[in-house]
Amino acid sequence: MAALPPALSDTIVALSTPPGAGAIALVRLSGREAISLVAAAFTGKRLIDQPSHTLHFGTIRDEGRILDEVVVSLFRAPNSYTREDVVEISCHGSDYIVQQLLLLFTRRGARLAEAGEFTKRAFLNGSFDLAQAEAVADLIAADSQLSHQVAMQQMRGGFSRELKDLRARLVQFAALLELELDFGEEDVEFADRTGLLALLEEVRTLVRRLLRSFELGNVIKNGVTTVIAGRPNAGKSTLLNALLNEERAIVSSVAGTTRDMIEDEVSLDGIRFRFVDTAGLRDTTDVVESIGVERTLQRVKQAALVIYLFDLTETSPTELQAEIEVLNLPAATPVLSVGNKLDVASDDQLTVFRTRPDTVLIAASRGDGLDELRHLLLTQVRNEGLDRTGSSTIVTNLRHARSLDAAAQALDAVLAGLTAGTGTELLAADLRQALAALGEITGEISSDDLLTSIFTQFCIGK
Amino acid sequence: MAALPPALSDTIVALSTPPGAGAIALVRLSGREAISLVAAAFTGKRLIDQPSHTLHFGTIRDEGRILDEVVVSLFRAPNSYTREDVVEISCHGSDYIVQQLLLLFTRRGARLAEAGEFTKRAFLNGSFDLAQAEAVADLIAADSQLSHQVAMQQMRGGFSRELKDLRARLVQFAALLELELDFGEEDVEFADRTGLLALLEEVRTLVRRLLRSFELGNVIKNGVTTVIAGRPNAGKSTLLNALLNEERAIVSSVAGTTRDMIEDEVSLDGIRFRFVDTAGLRDTTDVVESIGVERTLQRVKQAALVIYLFDLTETSPTELQAEIEVLNLPAATPVLSVGNKLDVASDDQLTVFRTRPDTVLIAASRGDGLDELRHLLLTQVRNEGLDRTGSSTIVTNLRHARSLDAAAQALDAVLAGLTAGTGTELLAADLRQALAALGEITGEISSDDLLTSIFTQFCIGK
Repeated sequence: MAALPPALSDTIVALSTPPGAGAIALVRLSGREAISLVAAAFTGKRLIDQPSHTLHFGTIRDEGRILDEVVVSLFRAPNSYTREDVVEISCHGSDYIVQQLLLLFTRRGARLAEAGEFTKRAFLNGSFDLAQAEAVADLIAADSQLSHQVAMQQMRGGFSRELKDLRARLVQFAALLELELDFGEEDVEFADRTGLLALLEEVRTLVRRLLRSFELGNVIKNGVTTVIAGRPNAGKSTLLNALLNEERAIVSSVAGTTRDMIEDEVSLDGIRFRFVDTAGLRDTTDVVESIGVERTLQRVKQAALVIYLFDLTETSPTELQAEIEVLNLPAATPVLSVGNKLDVASDDQLTVFRTRPDTVLIAASRGDGLDELRHLLLTQVRNEGLDRTGSSTIVTNLRHARSLDAAAQALDAVLAGLTAGTGTELLAADLRQALAALGEITGEISSDDLLTSIFTQFCIGK
Repeated sequence: MAALPPALSDTIVALSTPPGAGAIALVRLSGREAISLVAAAFTGKRLIDQPSHTLHFGTIRDEGRILDEVVVSLFRAPNSYTREDVVEISCHGSDYIVQQLLLLFTRRGARLAEAGEFTKRAFLNGSFDLAQAEAVADLIAADSQLSHQVAMQQMRGGFSRELKDLRARLVQFAALLELELDFGEEDVEFADRTGLLALLEEVRTLVRRLLRSFELGNVIKNGVTTVIAGRPNAGKSTLLNALLNEERAIVSSVAGTTRDMIEDEVSLDGIRFRFVDTAGLRDTTDVVESIGVERTLQRVKQAALVIYLFDLTETSPTELQAEIEVLNLPAATPVLSVGNKLDVASDDQLTVFRTRPDTVLIAASRGDGLDELRHLLLTQVRNEGLDRTGSSTIVTNLRHARSLDAAAQALDAVLAGLTAGTGTELLAADLRQALAALGEITGEISSDDLLTSIFTQFCIGK
């Protein structure tokens, strides 16, 4: 491993748990002086003599004044998150105490860590590659089973492995081409063009599959915005409540989860649906209300999916058709027609709609038909993504998608050149571009700017 | 130690760090099954075989699915906070992961901890007394050097020691009195009345001193509400900003500290002053504005301290006098007259006010005179409390103050009875009351209701 840049040899400190009052707060230090800095303030044991992976109860003092009774965790390099010496101080969860600890250690030579700096050090010290480091942030943000699973898989290297395999195969190819360039005058072909064509196509297929998975990846990471539209009193709020009902009990077991979000979101089979209840759609002359309706129409246009809810007992198929047309949806937006109040509808009314394949009949107040609706919602999303992906490796990161896109274009150029018999020099240049694009994802190729832009998106203390 | 009540023998689990996204979250388990529950879900090492006070990296799995990569801290009974087996799981700071971990362990037999239940167990298992347990909550809430120091001292037993000494002396006395009751018919006096009178008076003096310290204790814990009043444009906001200025830089080094509070609070020499800037006071016919003025007058009346700020260049001593009288303050509320704009006042204007001992002259915009003002603010508060207390042991808890008050009254009754030659039976009864009141503070005497009301004020996870 090369010597660390100077900025990495100092000792950093930060609060690593969320701010605010709580039972426990963790202040983390990493770097050469981490253990000695804490040891100098710690009363209880000689910390410097303690082995890695041990816990020590004692007090932290600042010139005699007791700041807190704490438990100190000791991790010795390289067996730590950052691969440096790391000390975690578990103190009482008070902002005042945390502030005093940070002041103490910065006064004695530590530096406040920048956002993501612990993880950046872990990356620079080879704990994991860049895509894995980014997955740490995704993991923290994950709020459904699927987004958690995808982030976890990426953090544990599944995603990176596939990318590195791809790149390794390309590097082999590139090496042979560069070799041809060295013998430029002699017109030799070390790289068997037919075999390489097949290899390149295989690689391009993989890159394209990963790119396609981004569509679903984005849905997994950001949720599916699903607008519930319909006339006033069609039962939109009842439906929303019924869909949200089951999840609530679970979510509320963790204190402090943001209420506003929960009101609108539900995770079905690991996919997060962001339900947007809308003002009832009707013609209105009231200016304020018409602004509300206008906004609804806007949201409907941005939706990934629209549920058009109608009252079975008051709507004919023709009316339904007309009302959906009024929404003026982009052609690509899927619409589910959902007929409510099947419990009070007449047999005739039911028969009319039962024959239509794109319509679900429900009784939102009793929960009838909700399973079918959930199933249909999931099918829609999966049709749009998962099944088309045909793989469990899913790209969720926009930066990765862009690099994959650049790689795909470069690969296209190589393939086209190969078919057209373009000179080796141009082929090699295009291939270098593809390699660079893929290398950016795992960080085999990275710049300071790139690292800064990635790690500043982390929270302080990570 | 007596057998634990059934509710205490089970294993509890809770998130012990504040909720919300962050680098790290801690999930804590305590109880008989704590280690085996985590061990069953942990891949990496056989946790059951590991010694106390060790750290272990691995994954937590729920039926094969990886929930997170974690570091597990192991504390074996009795060497833990609760004196039970305790496991702390340091996971990625995501509400989703925390929720999944809580679900996993509750499904397998743990119970979600009630607020303060870890600390309650620590108390019931003899880790510390009740006053110390309460100090844990105060410590977490402490937000100035002095409130931190007082809570820390109480948590470490300083306060309890003094109370227990007091009580031990009373118990001796009571034992002798009860002995006299046993020999009731024989009219013996085991307790030397003169010596006991002296002892009782000493104890009562101590109880009263602690009671008096509560005045300052309350100020330390809750801050000194200091209203800044004065005519419009006297420079109230400039003064507020100048007073707050220094502190801001320090406070903002901890992310997430509540802005709103900081705007109004400053800690001088460890005492927190809650400055209330008020609408300018002037006669007005505007209804809305007069409501504002009315509110100002209300706040002024509730203030612990009033700064009356006036413009040196526009105010005569007579006017100042009249304006302060208009405030119609309670006689006990101290008022500091503060003359602003000394930098532009004429020599005559300065001379008029410089001779008045209760007036400080400042230039808020330049910072002139602010040190003197700060010193005067502190002197006011200390005169009201600290110096009168004459001790470093300070009562900050209303419950303790009430018990001390009950003890003082019972002691008064014993003393009065002793002087009047009241019968031993009555003396013994009053003394028992005093002992009960003092015992409630440290928890030597406690009821389920009392414990519940104390510990439910804690946060979950503590």
